[in-house]
Amino acid sequence: MNGYRDLRVALLGCGSVGAQVARLILEQGDELAARVGARLQLAGIAVRSLDAKRDVELPQELFTTDAEQLVLGADVVVELMGGVEPARTLILQALEAGADVVTANKALIAAHGPELADAAEQVGAQLSYEAAVAGAIPIIRPLRESLAGDHITRVLGIVNGSTNYILDRMDRFGDSAEDAMRVASELGYLEADPTLDVEGYDAAQKATILASIAFHTEVPVDAVHREGITGITSEQIQAARNAGAVIKLLAIAERVTATDGTQGVSARVYPALIDRDHPLAAVHGGKNAVFVEAEAAGELMFYGAGAGGVETASAVLGDLVSAARRHVVGGPGIPGSAHADLPILPVGEVRTRYQVMLDVRDEPGVLAAIAGILADHGVSAASVEQSVPEDAAGTATLVIGTHTAREADLAATVDALRDSDVVTAVTSVLRLEGN
Amino acid sequence: MNGYRDLRVALLGCGSVGAQVARLILEQGDELAARVGARLQLAGIAVRSLDAKRDVELPQELFTTDAEQLVLGADVVVELMGGVEPARTLILQALEAGADVVTANKALIAAHGPELADAAEQVGAQLSYEAAVAGAIPIIRPLRESLAGDHITRVLGIVNGSTNYILDRMDRFGDSAEDAMRVASELGYLEADPTLDVEGYDAAQKATILASIAFHTEVPVDAVHREGITGITSEQIQAARNAGAVIKLLAIAERVTATDGTQGVSARVYPALIDRDHPLAAVHGGKNAVFVEAEAAGELMFYGAGAGGVETASAVLGDLVSAARRHVVGGPGIPGSAHADLPILPVGEVRTRYQVMLDVRDEPGVLAAIAGILADHGVSAASVEQSVPEDAAGTATLVIGTHTAREADLAATVDALRDSDVVTAVTSVLRLEGN
Repeated sequence: MNGYRDLRVALLGCGSVGAQVARLILEQGDELAARVGARLQLAGIAVRSLDAKRDVELPQELFTTDAEQLVLGADVVVELMGGVEPARTLILQALEAGADVVTANKALIAAHGPELADAAEQVGAQLSYEAAVAGAIPIIRPLRESLAGDHITRVLGIVNGSTNYILDRMDRFGDSAEDAMRVASELGYLEADPTLDVEGYDAAQKATILASIAFHTEVPVDAVHREGITGITSEQIQAARNAGAVIKLLAIAERVTATDGTQGVSARVYPALIDRDHPLAAVHGGKNAVFVEAEAAGELMFYGAGAGGVETASAVLGDLVSAARRHVVGGPGIPGSAHADLPILPVGEVRTRYQVMLDVRDEPGVLAAIAGILADHGVSAASVEQSVPEDAAGTATLVIGTHTAREADLAATVDALRDSDVVTAVTSVLRLEGN
Repeated sequence: MNGYRDLRVALLGCGSVGAQVARLILEQGDELAARVGARLQLAGIAVRSLDAKRDVELPQELFTTDAEQLVLGADVVVELMGGVEPARTLILQALEAGADVVTANKALIAAHGPELADAAEQVGAQLSYEAAVAGAIPIIRPLRESLAGDHITRVLGIVNGSTNYILDRMDRFGDSAEDAMRVASELGYLEADPTLDVEGYDAAQKATILASIAFHTEVPVDAVHREGITGITSEQIQAARNAGAVIKLLAIAERVTATDGTQGVSARVYPALIDRDHPLAAVHGGKNAVFVEAEAAGELMFYGAGAGGVETASAVLGDLVSAARRHVVGGPGIPGSAHADLPILPVGEVRTRYQVMLDVRDEPGVLAAIAGILADHGVSAASVEQSVPEDAAGTATLVIGTHTAREADLAATVDALRDSDVVTAVTSVLRLEGN
């Protein structure tokens, strides 16, 4: 203990995560003190309304509506309000006053991470946000510190629990998309505005943060190519199952070399097929996982709870202990990623594989025509499976799996298939990831 | 860069990991410098023989046989010699001279971790050993730092790639134990003395390290209850498969409350059944994974390559960057776990589940007799499956899955079953873990 003075912790926000953080700070005082080398004193909790109901019973005298005042006297500020303002301004004020900052605010970090990291670095303070991506799962620290001597090449994340829950129900219980979404909503898995989840906006924010950390490059959230899961049908889930795969909504951050040789970064979110043998395929229900490919380390995966008040509080407390220790032992915080400033490449430059399902005329020459379209675009087929449904006179179904090719060429191939006389309908287009 | 002086890195050992670490330090000088804030200068590589063949071509002038001399001038010492001596003495000398130390030496940390951690703490130096458990997988840092504000309750690790490879082949390809072992040996998966792998000695060293870090308690390696995989048969693998499970060699570190109320720690290694839906069941081939259960965070898993020269070098370099940064920014190293000094409880106090396979007489009253034996020991059955093989006149086979009970009571139950008149043979006893 060394008799170091108590450290003042200011908590901003008291929702499901904040209330658990407050409880753990109060209940585990001795243990946290042993790990930090000083006692953590919960100086106060800033809230919008003093009368709101909380998940946890907490001493009334801790609450205040004056966040600015609370921040000024703090050694460590824990921001769990969410949203961009006033969180951003309060964090900048805290950093200017020399406090360390811990936040779980993904929207804020996705939008203003570099600004906040710069502000922290200028005063030698620590800004940490382990809880902003994948809740309880330690992913930010491993990427920033454990892999600091390695070259990350790709990050594939299941980082939105709601959509994973929906897709998993459709796969494992045969639910329709509507049923799975209704159950997810009833269980409280979906945000009030489910668009944030199902259209991939939440995952895109996390893709931004993962790409920024993995590649030391600022990736604005609107540079993330984004496709949600609303178009995914039971038929696609079933077809994936038949092909030994599963559909997951992936947030992908990847080093990419463009056709002209430019080295850059791609960040994107879309539902994709993953082989059932891939570790990401075993991520069920509302769980999250981040699969990392690095030059030396090879393949790594980090798995756990991506949300939940007490689970996320674990990650916040880890950051809090680390920041508080820094106060005790001295030295500046670990600075944000050195900016490698790689260009952000459009999704067209990405190399991936497609699985395309087509209804085609059941007549001679069709396969040759389709093979010709693929060849025209420099795309080659890895597998072609044809079936003739009993009730579809004159029509056959084709499932084409391509080899790896440029996204732009694959997309152009699909357009050409759609325009072709022998194709009556393109019924499904999905990317295959993970290989 | 701030013009900080170059940092001298001394490398002890140049085997498969050491050669890759040397290569990466030399090849990635600029990037490492950007991350550290100072250049890493490879001051030398201590080896036993200057003429030995290396995995990587390295400048001859770097090599020396005088490890002691090399250590004295170093800022960071990277010890990759393996074995207890002279590694231990050299590390103590390095720490006394104020150097930080990075090691991948599991045998040394398992045997002398607390001594080395104390020596580091006394001089404010950093001792890190991310690569000592589960190779490339970041597990030490997440346990020590990310979960510093949480209570870890249990750690289940697949931490020996060779045995996982053998068990995985038996499960997925139907290999016999002998065939799987032969293939593992041919692929170089097994140590020269395979006993270290297949009898669980290697896993026990890692269990010691995991338990020490997770529970802030010194756990000597000979306090680890250890059972290997040499008794595992194809029949058991097949029976596991039929029961929707898979057999994995697990290193387990767990908080346990003894019958008399004592709070303590258990560390053990044994092959156990894991449900196929459990994330650990999807860990195939030579891969490693560590599954962590914590009070707040819930379930987490860390997955990746547990061995391999370049993979392990990734973890070593992460530690090296972290130690080097500390030199640049100042402040002491993060101290080793505060010693909670929980008692280490015997395996009999652990609560687990058993799956027991029996040959019994096929006559009335047998089930009642067996149920009576279970009840006498306070053990209750969760499932009983009976089958009568066609060729075994008068004999039936029973598979009993128990509910959770004390290991000592479960073991006594099996002894009593073995002695019972109605039981002709106990053909398999395995624990079920992961629930």
